Amino acid sequence: MLRHVLKSQQFDRALLLELFRETKVFAEKLESSHGKEELRRICPHRLLFTIFYEPSTRTRASFESAAHYLGMNCFSTENARVSSSAFKDEPLENSIENLCGYRPDVIVLRYHEEGGAERARAISTVPIINAGDGPGQHPTQSLLDIYSMWKDLHGEVDGITALIGGDLRNGRVARSDVYLLSKFKGIRFKFVSPNELRMKDDVLAHLREHDVPYSETENLEEVLPEADVVYWTRIQRERMTEEELARFAPLKDRFVLGERHLPLMKKNAIILHPQPIAGEIEPRVKLDPRARWKSQSANGLPSRMVLLTWVMNRFPHFH
Amino acid sequence: MLRHVLKSQQFDRALLLELFRETKVFAEKLESSHGKEELRRICPHRLLFTIFYEPSTRTRASFESAAHYLGMNCFSTENARVSSSAFKDEPLENSIENLCGYRPDVIVLRYHEEGGAERARAISTVPIINAGDGPGQHPTQSLLDIYSMWKDLHGEVDGITALIGGDLRNGRVARSDVYLLSKFKGIRFKFVSPNELRMKDDVLAHLREHDVPYSETENLEEVLPEADVVYWTRIQRERMTEEELARFAPLKDRFVLGERHLPLMKKNAIILHPQPIAGEIEPRVKLDPRARWKSQSANGLPSRMVLLTWVMNRFPHFH
Amino acid sequence: MLRHVLKSQQFDRALLLELFRETKVFAEKLESSHGKEELRRICPHRLLFTIFYEPSTRTRASFESAAHYLGMNCFSTENARVSSSAFKDEPLENSIENLCGYRPDVIVLRYHEEGGAERARAISTVPIINAGDGPGQHPTQSLLDIYSMWKDLHGEVDGITALIGGDLRNGRVARSDVYLLSKFKGIRFKFVSPNELRMKDDVLAHLREHDVPYSETENLEEVLPEADVVYWTRIQRERMTEEELARFAPLKDRFVLGERHLPLMKKNAIILHPQPIAGEIEPRVKLDPRARWKSQSANGLPSRMVLLTWVMNRFPHFH
Repeated sequence: MLRHVLKSQQFDRALLLELFRETKVFAEKLESSHGKEELRRICPHRLLFTIFYEPSTRTRASFESAAHYLGMNCFSTENARVSSSAFKDEPLENSIENLCGYRPDVIVLRYHEEGGAERARAISTVPIINAGDGPGQHPTQSLLDIYSMWKDLHGEVDGITALIGGDLRNGRVARSDVYLLSKFKGIRFKFVSPNELRMKDDVLAHLREHDVPYSETENLEEVLPEADVVYWTRIQRERMTEEELARFAPLKDRFVLGERHLPLMKKNAIILHPQPIAGEIEPRVKLDPRARWKSQSANGLPSRMVLLTWVMNRFPHFH
Repeated sequence: MLRHVLKSQQFDRALLLELFRETKVFAEKLESSHGKEELRRICPHRLLFTIFYEPSTRTRASFESAAHYLGMNCFSTENARVSSSAFKDEPLENSIENLCGYRPDVIVLRYHEEGGAERARAISTVPIINAGDGPGQHPTQSLLDIYSMWKDLHGEVDGITALIGGDLRNGRVARSDVYLLSKFKGIRFKFVSPNELRMKDDVLAHLREHDVPYSETENLEEVLPEADVVYWTRIQRERMTEEELARFAPLKDRFVLGERHLPLMKKNAIILHPQPIAGEIEPRVKLDPRARWKSQSANGLPSRMVLLTWVMNRFPHFH
Repeated sequence: MLRHVLKSQQFDRALLLELFRETKVFAEKLESSHGKEELRRICPHRLLFTIFYEPSTRTRASFESAAHYLGMNCFSTENARVSSSAFKDEPLENSIENLCGYRPDVIVLRYHEEGGAERARAISTVPIINAGDGPGQHPTQSLLDIYSMWKDLHGEVDGITALIGGDLRNGRVARSDVYLLSKFKGIRFKFVSPNELRMKDDVLAHLREHDVPYSETENLEEVLPEADVVYWTRIQRERMTEEELARFAPLKDRFVLGERHLPLMKKNAIILHPQPIAGEIEPRVKLDPRARWKSQSANGLPSRMVLLTWVMNRFPHFH
């Protein structure tokens, strides 16, 4: 039973596989009018509030659309830091408590500080879905990421080598993905990042504790040939110190995934990215059939539909 | 017949009691699926626009939710000063006139200047509900406030002693509440505020004219034992002059409602607050059963549902 | 077959007349409950996304309302530059591509740079409606403008003399209107603007090429008596250089349409304005029966309803 979706650690392999199978069914239903009609009957008259304290394109729109295709209603606050009582320094807890009084069936929350979703859950009378809590986690992104791997690798996540690259220190999605992927069997991680932006110790300790092999390098070419999944992310230069930036300057091209890398990759590998992309992938890479971030993003719709039905205990009848 | 909701003075005792009885019925309907189904049939296919020129958490969300539970549709502008033609200095009247042309059934308006709702009404072809007009009024808040008193005092508002405390000079809700409460019989007011932030003369003149007894003090302890309702509000320090602030500094703790005050209060008294709360109530006070601002806020949903049905002349059939 | 609505040049006279006749039918249906019920059945369960990178009052609200009256669902981003990944410099194309993945049936886009709608169309899998692209075009405004002329001139657009005045250099609507109007037969244009703000050469070249007569003047009084339509717009002083402003200062009253002009106008002429109005029309002019910008704005609802049905190929059965 899933009531709130707060962090990747809540999920185990069995639950993930169930979620993925269900997501695939939902995705198929979305392809036909008859299927859409079935989906619309799952949550009639239910109400979703999305409250965003930080910008979003994909996450908010996909939840709104998920609500629509489930027959729910949805109201959103797109810029809560300015247009809500947060502007008058109301604590998050008070806002959530009051919103619950207006009887939404679910609240999707993006907050600008780590722990926001957990603080909301502590007071909420309705399910809370974490849509990103500052540098903390972004579990619904991770769920669609791993679903995208599962789907594009034909159900075979066990045993893969996952290359996770870019800014591993600051990227909440990269962190959440590692936690989730490590639930599968025989996963090997290849972390590629500037030394300054290496994966933090909590994640590495978690891997060591569970005997999940990993390596760390600044050299993409060295590990690219082994990867079944290349998960690439943006270097968040704005979070580096001046010294870090000075050392990083001559290296920066190493962290742009380019056409020159394509021949080094496995034929059946896939390239994913949580987006937005800001130059860290050369445009022509997108033409390669292994580039999958477009369908990855679209997977957010069925994946979030399933999550909504689960937290509301609205299991559809078609399985 | 209520067409627009602009200010507290529109309501008399009989209308208030009718509104409260209806609100209670709506609140009960919201507790069952059958009741919700009845509510949804009241305003099918009706359209609400909410237009907010100032931040809001409770008011906007509760109107959106009210629309949802009445079977209506709702579109909101959460930050009209930036995202509407207000940005190009369009007068409010022109915006409202044009919005009316798109055939909403009701407009809920929060404006940053006193008189905004009245200016909108003057041009509007559809009902206008004032959701706060700068330092003017906030009548739908007052209606839920007095409803909360009526409900928690078991229908007995006549004859109560109401302690209204905090910033009485600048608080639009405190002002609206006094106008509304004074419609009942035998009300006594105890105003507690720094001298600089006393209730303004228009309100006091109104009370004298209608022979409603009131007293003013800086000393909460002195009047607390007599209160049936303690309505507490935030000191808006940002609106005080430097001299006022200098005199106020040593007094400020007097205007924090704390645990030490609880033993002084009547056993059956209730504590209300319009929120957001920013330190003027000690957190532990919330654990006292007399603290009611959480249910007070939730009362906004059925109360606003009733107002919407009234201004649209959509009286439900279940009474 | 209309798939995207990007610019005025897409429309020819026959298509415009069909659109206008349909718009009139929709407008009539909106007047009765039975008609509204018919309209609601046109696009059930369809989904509209509106994405606004610049402020809007009329355009966004009328599309939201159009969706409502067609039985569609609609989600809006009112301030995408701040609340979407545009804030993290995501290119428009990537945002649109991802939004398409969430299966809207139409996207209505206002962008702050010329060519935004065309860039969106190039990547979109669903119809794009241009709701203004910076200084480029605003075709849905032009369609409702010309519809307003057609309706208020009783179907007789051929042969009219159209006076277009104000800031013709910077006004995207004035430009779009000229392109559209020139599709009709025997149109004569009278352009009235400060010399600095004359209609740009691309438009004038287009008129010369199609043998559409036009004149240019700074003197409103000179051409006003001939006009069947007076289309008045705001002088965008913020876009003038200091030298331009210095020369313009003594002339500025000439570009305020005032009561003194009314006796010069034809009895059956009409005055239109795209709004917001910021002083360039004296308030009392609105009392003249020839002032039509209020109904012009309201025409946006049925006009945009028809466009939505056309781009989705949802032709209603009632004609």
